Amino acid sequence: MSAVGSGFVYHRRVQFPETDATGIVHFTNYFKYMEEAEHAMWRAAGLSISPPGAAIGWPRIGASFDYRKPLRFEDEFDVHIRVTGKTKKTIRYEAELRKDGETIGTGSLTIICVSRRPDEPMRAIDIPADVDAAFQAASGSPG
Amino acid sequence: MSAVGSGFVYHRRVQFPETDATGIVHFTNYFKYMEEAEHAMWRAAGLSISPPGAAIGWPRIGASFDYRKPLRFEDEFDVHIRVTGKTKKTIRYEAELRKDGETIGTGSLTIICVSRRPDEPMRAIDIPADVDAAFQAASGSPG
Amino acid sequence: MSAVGSGFVYHRRVQFPETDATGIVHFTNYFKYMEEAEHAMWRAAGLSISPPGAAIGWPRIGASFDYRKPLRFEDEFDVHIRVTGKTKKTIRYEAELRKDGETIGTGSLTIICVSRRPDEPMRAIDIPADVDAAFQAASGSPG
Amino acid sequence: MSAVGSGFVYHRRVQFPETDATGIVHFTNYFKYMEEAEHAMWRAAGLSISPPGAAIGWPRIGASFDYRKPLRFEDEFDVHIRVTGKTKKTIRYEAELRKDGETIGTGSLTIICVSRRPDEPMRAIDIPADVDAAFQAASGSPG
Repeated sequence: MSAVGSGFVYHRRVQFPETDATGIVHFTNYFKYMEEAEHAMWRAAGLSISPPGAAIGWPRIGASFDYRKPLRFEDEFDVHIRVTGKTKKTIRYEAELRKDGETIGTGSLTIICVSRRPDEPMRAIDIPADVDAAFQAASGSPG
Repeated sequence: MSAVGSGFVYHRRVQFPETDATGIVHFTNYFKYMEEAEHAMWRAAGLSISPPGAAIGWPRIGASFDYRKPLRFEDEFDVHIRVTGKTKKTIRYEAELRKDGETIGTGSLTIICVSRRPDEPMRAIDIPADVDAAFQAASGSPG
Repeated sequence: MSAVGSGFVYHRRVQFPETDATGIVHFTNYFKYMEEAEHAMWRAAGLSISPPGAAIGWPRIGASFDYRKPLRFEDEFDVHIRVTGKTKKTIRYEAELRKDGETIGTGSLTIICVSRRPDEPMRAIDIPADVDAAFQAASGSPG
Repeated sequence: MSAVGSGFVYHRRVQFPETDATGIVHFTNYFKYMEEAEHAMWRAAGLSISPPGAAIGWPRIGASFDYRKPLRFEDEFDVHIRVTGKTKKTIRYEAELRKDGETIGTGSLTIICVSRRPDEPMRAIDIPADVDAAFQAASGSPG
């Protein structure tokens, strides 16, 4: 658990449909890479962010990415992700993509805990205790 | 309604993330184009294929496409789609993509009507009367 | 041109593959919506952001979005986009998604002008005069 | 090499954006899964289907899939892929997706070898000797 709290590393290879006509990875996929790393971090903590029949959900309320170097088809890279902020209802992650020792880019995601009931609008609720315990906010930036 | 039964035309422009590193549209997007045309055809018939809280669904049981010419960023094209087969539980569409009078490719989709209840596996059911009435099977191939 | 400079409105409908298992639009698609609006704004100015055989390109160096309300299948919405900053080599856009008079979310994209030559790394260059003339930076936030 | 010729197995987990509002994987992603397995099979044979600066390419001329059972978020599954046909210019693959010993669906892809030169249309050419040698057509269906 403490390993998860202080950061998690997710390894990935660029797949072909993620590239665009300029020959590099389309910018929206960096958000998918961060989210995949987030979900893998949850699994590493023994949790699923969206188990079957879940009564709560975790929509994003903010997402950002700063791009430094391009990625190309079949490139292998790592997503270093860690929790850098928590409130009673939200979790903030920061992530860094690295390839061959270089920073490809950095980004953040902020999620909010909501109740999901059929025929009701989503409503923010407190983070459940097991999730709260699994993710300790690290200090500093990822890497 | 009869216009829908005998075929429907959906106009589209290629968006940038649909291209890949070879400079042309990635082959999976042709399936998205056919599905968008299908859903627009349902709307033209006064229906939604997935209304909020729907107790039935329409998963695909088959999909195929034959590619003849590439599409590129900002190309405009038409999807000609029509119902070419119906059973009590399934609908089969055939579609042709055309640009500037040329055939880009042709494909088909087959969908099945299923009941969707929480905590139950999907089960094939008869097509509701309103959907059955909206789509008459055309004879022959699209175009 | 002045209409483009002071902002551009792009109309869109949510397509089915853009939704995810929580029933709402997956967060990465809001970036696709902003980019589609950007490219339509370029076309409205008589330009293409990626014409065939282009020797220059416009990769993103930053992208962010703040989510307020969800979108669902078949929802219709508008992307209000405008140029809110320009340097010699970069353009910054801000965008607001609106549905039925409500703000769905707001975001930004920053792009940089680069030379694209085979077998050379991308290199930042000055924005060409025709692009510079087409987009005047508006003051204030979008909407 | 002979292991590649007689079939290749690619392991994968369902990622969240691959699901849609019905809670299951969107049908277009099965084509992405087959293509990912194909590209991994090329890598296992010491090849890349799209190396940097390639003068040849491999567009799809046909793709089909038959769906039997749904996949859901975080499901793990295998793609069993093999070459089932070859001509001088084309390769045909068949693939089967399996989860927990059950068949999720089966599909096929047919690709054609083309020359890719700037400012020229793609033109079909003979498969290079190294690719031809790497992939022997297996007999029978996958699995």
